[in-house]
Amino acid sequence: MATTDYASIEIIRQLQAIVGDDYVVYKPEDLIVYEYDGSADKAMPSIVVVPGNAEQVAAVVKVARENDVPIVPRGAGTGLSGGAVAQVGGIVISLTRMTRILEVDVENRIAVVEPGVINLHLTEHVSQYGLCYAPDPSSQKACTIGGNVAENSGGPHCLAYGVTTNHVLGMEVVMADGSLQWVGGRTRETPGYDLRGILIGSEGTLAIVTKVIVRLLRQPEAVKTLLAVFRDVSEASAAVSGIIGAGIVPAAIEMMDDLCIQAVEPAVNAGYPEDAGAVLLVEVEGLHESVEEEVEEIENVCNEFGPIEIRTATNQEARDRLWAGRKGVLGALGRLAPNYLLVDGTVPRTKLVEVLSQIRQLSQDSGYPIANLLHAGDGNLHPSVLFDERKPGDTHKALALGGEILRMCVDAGGVLTGEHGIGLEKQEYMDFMFTDNDMEAMARLKPAFDTRDMLNPAKIFPSGATCGEVAGHSHGHGAIARVGADAWI
Amino acid sequence: MATTDYASIEIIRQLQAIVGDDYVVYKPEDLIVYEYDGSADKAMPSIVVVPGNAEQVAAVVKVARENDVPIVPRGAGTGLSGGAVAQVGGIVISLTRMTRILEVDVENRIAVVEPGVINLHLTEHVSQYGLCYAPDPSSQKACTIGGNVAENSGGPHCLAYGVTTNHVLGMEVVMADGSLQWVGGRTRETPGYDLRGILIGSEGTLAIVTKVIVRLLRQPEAVKTLLAVFRDVSEASAAVSGIIGAGIVPAAIEMMDDLCIQAVEPAVNAGYPEDAGAVLLVEVEGLHESVEEEVEEIENVCNEFGPIEIRTATNQEARDRLWAGRKGVLGALGRLAPNYLLVDGTVPRTKLVEVLSQIRQLSQDSGYPIANLLHAGDGNLHPSVLFDERKPGDTHKALALGGEILRMCVDAGGVLTGEHGIGLEKQEYMDFMFTDNDMEAMARLKPAFDTRDMLNPAKIFPSGATCGEVAGHSHGHGAIARVGADAWI
Repeated sequence: MATTDYASIEIIRQLQAIVGDDYVVYKPEDLIVYEYDGSADKAMPSIVVVPGNAEQVAAVVKVARENDVPIVPRGAGTGLSGGAVAQVGGIVISLTRMTRILEVDVENRIAVVEPGVINLHLTEHVSQYGLCYAPDPSSQKACTIGGNVAENSGGPHCLAYGVTTNHVLGMEVVMADGSLQWVGGRTRETPGYDLRGILIGSEGTLAIVTKVIVRLLRQPEAVKTLLAVFRDVSEASAAVSGIIGAGIVPAAIEMMDDLCIQAVEPAVNAGYPEDAGAVLLVEVEGLHESVEEEVEEIENVCNEFGPIEIRTATNQEARDRLWAGRKGVLGALGRLAPNYLLVDGTVPRTKLVEVLSQIRQLSQDSGYPIANLLHAGDGNLHPSVLFDERKPGDTHKALALGGEILRMCVDAGGVLTGEHGIGLEKQEYMDFMFTDNDMEAMARLKPAFDTRDMLNPAKIFPSGATCGEVAGHSHGHGAIARVGADAWI
Repeated sequence: MATTDYASIEIIRQLQAIVGDDYVVYKPEDLIVYEYDGSADKAMPSIVVVPGNAEQVAAVVKVARENDVPIVPRGAGTGLSGGAVAQVGGIVISLTRMTRILEVDVENRIAVVEPGVINLHLTEHVSQYGLCYAPDPSSQKACTIGGNVAENSGGPHCLAYGVTTNHVLGMEVVMADGSLQWVGGRTRETPGYDLRGILIGSEGTLAIVTKVIVRLLRQPEAVKTLLAVFRDVSEASAAVSGIIGAGIVPAAIEMMDDLCIQAVEPAVNAGYPEDAGAVLLVEVEGLHESVEEEVEEIENVCNEFGPIEIRTATNQEARDRLWAGRKGVLGALGRLAPNYLLVDGTVPRTKLVEVLSQIRQLSQDSGYPIANLLHAGDGNLHPSVLFDERKPGDTHKALALGGEILRMCVDAGGVLTGEHGIGLEKQEYMDFMFTDNDMEAMARLKPAFDTRDMLNPAKIFPSGATCGEVAGHSHGHGAIARVGADAWI
């Protein structure tokens, strides 16, 4: 898709009048840093504006609308599906200056924050009241609450607590016509249509969020982290089903296979045995007594599936070390191959063994190593196809394998994405799970919010879909994660 | 609003050809039972159709569309806001024959059910696997899962577990054009726009649900119910804030004031002291140890606010007796007055004391008794204004007081409805909390799903709102609950 340069002296002056000269970026050498997000896609925006408050965002949208310029909202740019890439050019609205925590209402356990607040900063700030914000994407040191809202982000601890939409009560948003409005509120019930719900996860295509009212949870009284080491992924998967089946809902159950372990252990020294077939990282939170009881139950379940070893971290340092392994996996995959293609799919938990075995078979048949990292408790898989883009045909083959994996997930009753959104990356796979009727129903929503298709155009829907007719396949678009990029999962 | 008779021999024959002669109701004497729901509103439908499966629902919608006849979906008719009343006439599609539990997937903890399945039947059915369905409206013996989806129903136990939208993963729906489609899925993540979320709580105005995939929870290991008796509602409200503030999230915290107690105790003999100012009913669930610990903590918090008495039910029979009081309140209000106007509003928990005191003042100033029943942990209030419709002006005054109470809730940062929907009852109050911009954003969604405004027209929006322009006040519509009706909360 071609990028149009929408910049003109006149538009730049209008934007400078709103946000000040320092906060309008238009020189090519300055724009380059806004070309990428955490995905493989790139496109050069015409102008980047960095507003300081909601009123400025609204005024910028009005200028864009008067001049027929597309708008792409952007948080920290850690997204993994190209949502913040200005695919057709236009104005990128960067929300990174809007970083104020406006209110913490301790008694009602809510906070009101601006969209540029970094996820981890919010949890750190409210920890003084014994509270925390539950969704914890692995990019939480960098990603923003606004970006989390756009992608409906998950994270390891979403197993017990749910994803972003379960923790956002209300939002102030700028609509496509530049009007400011509130959706939802300070309580969980929302009368009328749930506009809050439809905007969360809409990937910046329906509105721009300028304030977010989030639910806060009380910090758990006790936390324990357990490492269970298995001979292969089937046994580890069976243990996951066993734990959930026993009625235990840990705060997190993460799984890494042999390739992940071999990549990360030399890099991070997390203490994972390098000859293991799979490790499970299980975290339990709650009252002291129930944590003790649940850890014991989890150990009993794991013992049924012939573990090599079970180890419990008894202090914060040991816990951090175990988690450093989990969080370092993607960064470490570069030790195994120059490139990897990261896939994001979800299957019913009971299908984990079956789908992982199909992926292993696919890897053997194709000769391409596939490393599997999973939010296992949720059935959310992140297989990474390892390849070398310098070898002719390798990229193409990796993409084809990624498509096959997504097909397997959908065929097993799962979905295309666990938590990273559709963006650009998965447009061409939408018809794996959506019928024309499904796509039409979604496509009809877009103009109800954004008549002129100004907000983050060319995302989610295969090209042409928002024009009232759902097209078939679009351009053959890729999904290659660059090693060394901010690829957080 | 005038009701049109859309019935014709031809339409009746087309409908009979789809569902069979026995399942098309068109004689006035048979239609009468479909005139009401649990609210005060009534209107005679032209025809009632009772389809046996999703394909029949789709075919009926197509016939209605071809003949330009409005459609009103209906579950058990226990709704409290007029959602199932055929306000402009048309075809009522009753889903009460579609009562099959199609699948229980114990390992993945989901069930697939038809919309006519009664809420309590689902929980009873899955109890053999040690599972339960969390949302428990007080009408759960009669109300249907489909109706719960339409109203996004809550219930006493939604304090800990959330409302219907938190427990529905996916749905099969019939769209306004008669096409059948799935939204959401079998896992929690939904790629693309969250159509599942927008349809839940849309009160039958956007689509008709024909299958529902629900999350099931494991039955708790232990349950304890505690009755705390206070001298007045302020102390009881302060105790509620204290419990939540201490980080305890009981499964339910219900509050009843003196008038509720005086009405229900002679009727049900629940063991509530008749001279009390307020009682709290608190239920705690979980592992044995944590239940014991939480009950102790709750007793400690309650003791800070000078309770008259605290009592813990130690067996199922004692628990049932305490709950019988709570569930019998509305039915018993007839002992105090011939009519009551039931109000449904939600405020931040910390505003409970303030708003209840305002309501008490309103009652004293006006001379109308107001009985307060609350899902207190959620800040969800159900004040009932007691009056006598035979006295001239009484009805009008009660309605005015109801409006004032809703205004107080909104002014305190709350919302118009906790769980009963907008329907017909609250249309005229929508502008208490929604601006024209807000209403327009909602109104634009309706034609995206239902171009011709065929599905449950004249609901939610003040009249004219779905035609693209938001009107101001509509007809002065009432909200009187008939004593003895299926008024379940």
